[in-house]
Amino acid sequence: RIVKVNTAKLIMFASIFYIASAFIIYFLEPETFQNPFIGFWWVMTTVTTVGFGDYSPVTVPGMLFGIFLYLFGIGLIGIILGKVVDSYTYYGRLKMGGEL
Amino acid sequence: RIVKVNTAKLIMFASIFYIASAFIIYFLEPETFQNPFIGFWWVMTTVTTVGFGDYSPVTVPGMLFGIFLYLFGIGLIGIILGKVVDSYTYYGRLKMGGEL
Amino acid sequence: RIVKVNTAKLIMFASIFYIASAFIIYFLEPETFQNPFIGFWWVMTTVTTVGFGDYSPVTVPGMLFGIFLYLFGIGLIGIILGKVVDSYTYYGRLKMGGEL
Amino acid sequence: RIVKVNTAKLIMFASIFYIASAFIIYFLEPETFQNPFIGFWWVMTTVTTVGFGDYSPVTVPGMLFGIFLYLFGIGLIGIILGKVVDSYTYYGRLKMGGEL
Ligand SMILES: [K+]
Ligand SMILES: [K+]
Repeated sequence: RIVKVNTAKLIMFASIFYIASAFIIYFLEPETFQNPFIGFWWVMTTVTTVGFGDYSPVTVPGMLFGIFLYLFGIGLIGIILGKVVDSYTYYGRLKMGGEL
Repeated sequence: RIVKVNTAKLIMFASIFYIASAFIIYFLEPETFQNPFIGFWWVMTTVTTVGFGDYSPVTVPGMLFGIFLYLFGIGLIGIILGKVVDSYTYYGRLKMGGEL
Repeated sequence: RIVKVNTAKLIMFASIFYIASAFIIYFLEPETFQNPFIGFWWVMTTVTTVGFGDYSPVTVPGMLFGIFLYLFGIGLIGIILGKVVDSYTYYGRLKMGGEL
Repeated sequence: RIVKVNTAKLIMFASIFYIASAFIIYFLEPETFQNPFIGFWWVMTTVTTVGFGDYSPVTVPGMLFGIFLYLFGIGLIGIILGKVVDSYTYYGRLKMGGEL
């Protein structure tokens, strides 16, 4: 089944979700995540499941928020990465002359 | 093919599986995972494949249990993340007026 | 399209591939991976993309073998995790009384 | 829907993308990524989402480029890993006598 979600609204929702998450983790653990940009870097590193481990929460609230991000942020980025894959495919088709 | 598993039972089974895994890794390596919550944090970090590396087993039994989690926990979280994606999609459809 | 590969042969092929990889990385970097079991732990941590970073290659041959594992080991574990998901689904169906 | 992209062109495009990314991160943070090969190791570790954390950017430009790689490099490697899975499947079919 093809997921039909309006791409512009999805990107807007996801951007708000990830930026809000960056501020939340900065609020929960300012000593680990020294500013909201570090928080945003950690959020994106987490939801894409790269997980470098250069920053990771050390308090119970921070870890609980991390587990929340695992469940809801990873699913959301999965939809977005699926759209990136679709656009690569679309680009590839255009270059090859539009075979469907 | 659409995976048809009762969502409530799935979440119950997964919760028990992950909480039991937290106690098992705490039991196997109490010096690395100082309490069952740290164990749960590590289990969720592992099965989502984020893998920060802030905690990781250093003994043979702990590593063997880790490899077991790779194989069975990752597959299970995959089903759950698929359901999260479905619910985002469902929410997106509702907001757009129920197009199918 | 449903991937039709004989499960028993697949598991045998994958086991040989991962165990051989463990010995290869141990051979390439014995100072990092002190024994083949540590090599096996690193191989499984890598191909599932968990990547704790407790062990990682530091020489050019080790890194090149790591990149090879990224490309071929991750695809292979993807097929196996897909089969684990299928068996969870099958188990879920059995418990619910075999709805299809 | 089956993704139809010419495999040879895809591999060429991806190789150029990843090698260019290696030079870009080396250019952005030469103190972290001491040479372009270390950059390439980091790029491949990142786009496959393994993320060992042995190397990771510490400056704002490096982190922003990392987030760009999360979004565009991961989608691209997803297409390539899908092709690796297809070729395993094809190989498995050949060995079993061509069942379809
Ligand atoms: K990682
Ligand atoms: K990872």
